[in-house]
Amino acid sequence: MKNTYFTVGPSQLYPTVAKHVAVAMKQDVPSLNHRGKEFKEIYKHTSEMLRKLMDIPESHHIFFVASGHEGMERILMNTVHKHSFHLVSGAFSKKFYAQALALSKKPEKIEVPTGTGFDFAKIKIPKHAEVICITQNETSTGVRINMSDIYALKKRTPQALIAMDIVSSAPYVTIDFRHIDMAFFSVQKGFGLPSGLGILIVSNKAIKKTKLLAGKKMPIGGYHDFLSLHESVLTSQTPETPNILNIYLLGKVTQDLLQYGVEKMRKETEEKAKLLYDFFDKHPKYKPFVTKEHRSPTTLVIDTKGDTEKIVAKLAKKGYGVSKGYGDRNEDQIRIANFPAQTLKQVKTLLASF
Amino acid sequence: MKNTYFTVGPSQLYPTVAKHVAVAMKQDVPSLNHRGKEFKEIYKHTSEMLRKLMDIPESHHIFFVASGHEGMERILMNTVHKHSFHLVSGAFSKKFYAQALALSKKPEKIEVPTGTGFDFAKIKIPKHAEVICITQNETSTGVRINMSDIYALKKRTPQALIAMDIVSSAPYVTIDFRHIDMAFFSVQKGFGLPSGLGILIVSNKAIKKTKLLAGKKMPIGGYHDFLSLHESVLTSQTPETPNILNIYLLGKVTQDLLQYGVEKMRKETEEKAKLLYDFFDKHPKYKPFVTKEHRSPTTLVIDTKGDTEKIVAKLAKKGYGVSKGYGDRNEDQIRIANFPAQTLKQVKTLLASF
Repeated sequence: MKNTYFTVGPSQLYPTVAKHVAVAMKQDVPSLNHRGKEFKEIYKHTSEMLRKLMDIPESHHIFFVASGHEGMERILMNTVHKHSFHLVSGAFSKKFYAQALALSKKPEKIEVPTGTGFDFAKIKIPKHAEVICITQNETSTGVRINMSDIYALKKRTPQALIAMDIVSSAPYVTIDFRHIDMAFFSVQKGFGLPSGLGILIVSNKAIKKTKLLAGKKMPIGGYHDFLSLHESVLTSQTPETPNILNIYLLGKVTQDLLQYGVEKMRKETEEKAKLLYDFFDKHPKYKPFVTKEHRSPTTLVIDTKGDTEKIVAKLAKKGYGVSKGYGDRNEDQIRIANFPAQTLKQVKTLLASF
Repeated sequence: MKNTYFTVGPSQLYPTVAKHVAVAMKQDVPSLNHRGKEFKEIYKHTSEMLRKLMDIPESHHIFFVASGHEGMERILMNTVHKHSFHLVSGAFSKKFYAQALALSKKPEKIEVPTGTGFDFAKIKIPKHAEVICITQNETSTGVRINMSDIYALKKRTPQALIAMDIVSSAPYVTIDFRHIDMAFFSVQKGFGLPSGLGILIVSNKAIKKTKLLAGKKMPIGGYHDFLSLHESVLTSQTPETPNILNIYLLGKVTQDLLQYGVEKMRKETEEKAKLLYDFFDKHPKYKPFVTKEHRSPTTLVIDTKGDTEKIVAKLAKKGYGVSKGYGDRNEDQIRIANFPAQTLKQVKTLLASF
């Protein structure tokens, strides 16, 4: 029996991945020249499919990097001279802030207790903030930030660029990129692919900022700066030899998602999320960690009152994988992924196994 | 009919890769938690196999990164305060130098015309050079530097760290790591794997230098600095979610190479190289680009007198892939890979197709 993974990433592979891997191996995709015509076709196909699925306008470019972590680093090096501002509510927003410190920037932050959301009306962004870094979906705590709050924040601080971590909300999250300058995700979560590829979406406005920093002789990166990445996009290539197989697979799975229907996928994600949250809202012992208004539909965090080990072992026996709580919540929380790869039927049988 | 790839990377997959990919998919390797026990076992296995195959001592650590290009960047950010010194003889050694410039270092270089080697006795290393960057095997020109020359250089400049690009010579090249501080390669060349994984080998001495730079508040990286990478090694993890599938495959193929016999593989590489060079030395029109003493056994560059397009098309029809010349030699050179994945029999049939 194959296991079913509700882990928050790496997670369940999208159902068509095995087939696409087999075809790729048969067609020698891993042996293709990364400067050749066939790879360029793959590159273009994947970019086009992503543009369609996520409604990415021509004003924004799609860069292939190695991970979400790399996305954070490249954003900070390429668009922050000194001051980034971070909305911190969990481990991954903390990492974004920590990277800014490590890169000798002068980051500032507003921090709320894990599991709670931000009161956006009260957030004061300093005038000197160049980039506002927002973890739109916190994989560690299961808190999701509403896009409408982010758009409103952008409206009242138009001088700052907005950079969004959508690692565990893409492709479910609907984004109006007119208000968002940068966003990044990795493919082993919502896209249900093997890990080792990150996607970084960058606006012309952000690239203009990079040019300004480069003009000041700021180090913007050795090989993966926004200027070299942008230049490479124009010829459907990457500066280095990239993860060709994963770029191929991402194009195929994105095409499959488009054929399935993006609105259908979103509606089902919400149905599955409701089923899961309702179950735990009614559960005598295990309760959702996050208050209703801030709950993520894609990564759910449940308080287990110390039963995590027991639950994980019990589910594993039945062929289900869920994630333990993050960091110091390792023993008293579990995290459940609700990505396109996990079907409604699988959610039902998972809940029946509790 | 399956093609046979003599391209210099991505290249022919090692014969066992397809089987290992199938097993990995069956065993849900891409869905494994990158902080979990099973992944740690994979991590340890791959590291141990690499240590055995390449004779890497305990004084040196194995870091998993995304590419050879990333290897260059991390070395420069983590061990160069101001002054790197570069041996430049082709496109990839130029890239190493260019990355140092991009990172606001003050690199210096000695440059020789492409296709020629260095006269090591005459190389003067400035006293302030912190790291000497050497592209031991230039994929763009087919020039290989003898390890004995590098050891001698290290002996007379013990104050400098030695960083080696072995992207297209590993695992053939035999290295005495007592004289080498850092080396990096990517897996889509000599290891015959899908692209998207780089290996960076770093000595304790190099890490000591990183600590010095970190103490001076130099930016050493956002998430992939030598300190965080070293810390992660201690728990068999990576700072980010890595390319899990490729780390798994690298362990398996390295194990296969060990079982095959590393000395046998090296001997065969030399036999195949001799066959190839002899053929072109005797060819009426197409001649090896590099003089005998500097010729790479793993990446061969052949002058085609403008026939590249014709040769590539002719070989493609017969199911063989070779690389065109690099950059401005695109039309009058070809490059032929001689990695462990290309068998003696395949070399013979390739040559019979010319």
